[in-house]
Amino acid sequence: MDYEKVIPGIIKKTDSKILLIVLDGVGGLPHSETGKTELETASTPFLDEMASKSSCGLTIPVLNGITPGSGPGHIALFGYDPIETQIGRGVLECLGIGATVGKDDIAIRGNFATITPDRIVTDRRAGRISTEENQEIVSLLSEKIKEIKGVKVSIYTVKEHRCAIVLKGSGLAPYVSENDPQKEGQPLKPIKALDRSSDKTAEVLSEIEKKVMEILMPVDTKAKGLLFRGISKLPDIKTFSEKYKLNAACIATYPMYKGIAKVVGMDVIDGLETIESEINALKGIYNQYDFFFLHIKKTDSYGEDGNFEAKVKTIEEADRCLSVIKNMKFGAIAITGDHSTPALLKSHSWHPLPLLINSPYAIQDDAKRLTERECAKGILGRIYSKEIMYLLLAYSLKLDKFGA
Amino acid sequence: MDYEKVIPGIIKKTDSKILLIVLDGVGGLPHSETGKTELETASTPFLDEMASKSSCGLTIPVLNGITPGSGPGHIALFGYDPIETQIGRGVLECLGIGATVGKDDIAIRGNFATITPDRIVTDRRAGRISTEENQEIVSLLSEKIKEIKGVKVSIYTVKEHRCAIVLKGSGLAPYVSENDPQKEGQPLKPIKALDRSSDKTAEVLSEIEKKVMEILMPVDTKAKGLLFRGISKLPDIKTFSEKYKLNAACIATYPMYKGIAKVVGMDVIDGLETIESEINALKGIYNQYDFFFLHIKKTDSYGEDGNFEAKVKTIEEADRCLSVIKNMKFGAIAITGDHSTPALLKSHSWHPLPLLINSPYAIQDDAKRLTERECAKGILGRIYSKEIMYLLLAYSLKLDKFGA
Repeated sequence: MDYEKVIPGIIKKTDSKILLIVLDGVGGLPHSETGKTELETASTPFLDEMASKSSCGLTIPVLNGITPGSGPGHIALFGYDPIETQIGRGVLECLGIGATVGKDDIAIRGNFATITPDRIVTDRRAGRISTEENQEIVSLLSEKIKEIKGVKVSIYTVKEHRCAIVLKGSGLAPYVSENDPQKEGQPLKPIKALDRSSDKTAEVLSEIEKKVMEILMPVDTKAKGLLFRGISKLPDIKTFSEKYKLNAACIATYPMYKGIAKVVGMDVIDGLETIESEINALKGIYNQYDFFFLHIKKTDSYGEDGNFEAKVKTIEEADRCLSVIKNMKFGAIAITGDHSTPALLKSHSWHPLPLLINSPYAIQDDAKRLTERECAKGILGRIYSKEIMYLLLAYSLKLDKFGA
Repeated sequence: MDYEKVIPGIIKKTDSKILLIVLDGVGGLPHSETGKTELETASTPFLDEMASKSSCGLTIPVLNGITPGSGPGHIALFGYDPIETQIGRGVLECLGIGATVGKDDIAIRGNFATITPDRIVTDRRAGRISTEENQEIVSLLSEKIKEIKGVKVSIYTVKEHRCAIVLKGSGLAPYVSENDPQKEGQPLKPIKALDRSSDKTAEVLSEIEKKVMEILMPVDTKAKGLLFRGISKLPDIKTFSEKYKLNAACIATYPMYKGIAKVVGMDVIDGLETIESEINALKGIYNQYDFFFLHIKKTDSYGEDGNFEAKVKTIEEADRCLSVIKNMKFGAIAITGDHSTPALLKSHSWHPLPLLINSPYAIQDDAKRLTERECAKGILGRIYSKEIMYLLLAYSLKLDKFGA
């Protein structure tokens, strides 16, 4: 990114504080009866007031028309190019269940599968075993597979037939072919190193594959083996402290977002469950940090369920809880989402999201609410999500002039 | 830039004339009492009329959030990428005082410093000597240091402890380490060539350093030596004539802007001091050129002083003076700024600037004034400053179709 060529020469540490509030999946689409989106339907006195006093705009999470997953959505909000800086699916799966992934570790998504003794995959999801059965199997495997060739192996239940695996040890690289044949009735594919740096990873995974089959063969379950997918490592990126000279804290309830925040070097506040507890945490740590990432999860979940009314209610709840930040002092505040999740689509979408930036140096514009259509009138125009961090640094006066 | 791949194949020379009016630092922020920016406060009948009859938009000088210096601000307006094409600080300093810098010359910012005979820097600014004292020292040095190893040495007073140096000769390159230790109490650093092409520059500068110390040692002044900074050369870029087939003239009052215009190959009209004299010059040379860069400096200066009212008055004065261009014929006119200088910030800022493009082929839009908020409604949207030149070429019908 061009920013990388400019920012290191002009970034400075100051006392001013930045608050980035992410309402997960908050963008929506009009309800067929009312013609209003979730944000337009909700009563949001706090967000309305903030929008009226801020510069507003719309954000494009990745590129026009591209629907981001949570990984790219957040990586972009943190100022990294979401195409250049991709977080592997194995890493995201592990972060999503709260597993710790170190910078030299290998993270993997696992599928329990039904596999015959002569290695034919007959069911790639092992009949979608229950999460309870998964937990029993993982507990058995964890007891018997602890370390292979000096590499620590950790297996975690995700859900139904899905698990996650972390390999911790030296000399590991993620460039190995996967054993999943993708089709049923086919044999397991050999796990091969795709470069010399990954030889050890391939050996360890082949050994795990073999041991899992040996251990599960006599057990009464359809899960007879493991398919490894999304074998990956943390991206090699600069942390918030290196990139922005910011001492950053993450206030979130869900493991996935806490995990991504850790990847970029934020301190993660643990034990939070409600929006109120998040706001209390913000107040509690206010003096210790100069950047706060505050993540509100609920707005997304109801969108995924197609529950328009519940999403509206959650937006209203977030609005009530957030209103106390009016009494706190920040150099710059951004409120936006990581992607849209219209109830109409029951899934993430590509639609641009409303954004407001509040600061003493932000021009108030015609956008009076934090909604898709109001923010389209905003003076910030349409920007890429990856630009928000740079605007926040500018509006909090943390950037010197570029060039004389 | 992608334009470089397209323009050479489609640019053509025509009779139509282009006028680019740059109101330096014209963008602002709302006054705390009125809620209106400098441009919104000013009475500007001419600019209002032009905006009403033009296509409007907002320009981003470098990138969202990045505050440009005058160098990047103007280089972008001239259609060069301000990150790829950086003008060194030494070059800008020399251009700023009106020194001539040729394409093979080395330009340097100098600081007079207090330095002990055994090379310890005790005051990096020589007690901020007066500009008069600086002039006396420079006059003495200029008399005694004229040429070293066949390289012509020119030293110029800038202000207080600051001077500028131009080396003119063959075989010079700017890749040498600086002698400034950055901290007081430290010895001068050795001046070393960082590549073979810069060997001669390092030798000449080391010799200047030595001679300056010898000459100043017996003189009654705190200035006992020179720190060399921003050692640089003109960027190697295509001129306006090569890039756009334009025969361009610069109408400006300040040396810095005349210097940057020279870098891109414009003819510079000298001896101008007021906006009226600039407009008269425009009329006088109208038949000789097909591109005119008209630079109004005063709008910036009052912003830097934090003088909101004076900035408003200067905008009004510029509006009155500019109104005569209504009677002149141009294929396309752009009016914008190089960066914002809000009185509120007393410095350059990152905020996008209003832009209008007037041409028989420009669609009139909802923007009725050349102000930050009106132009946000404009049909041009938000564009990078480096795109304006290409729009001007298009609107004056100087670009053929790209592809069949």
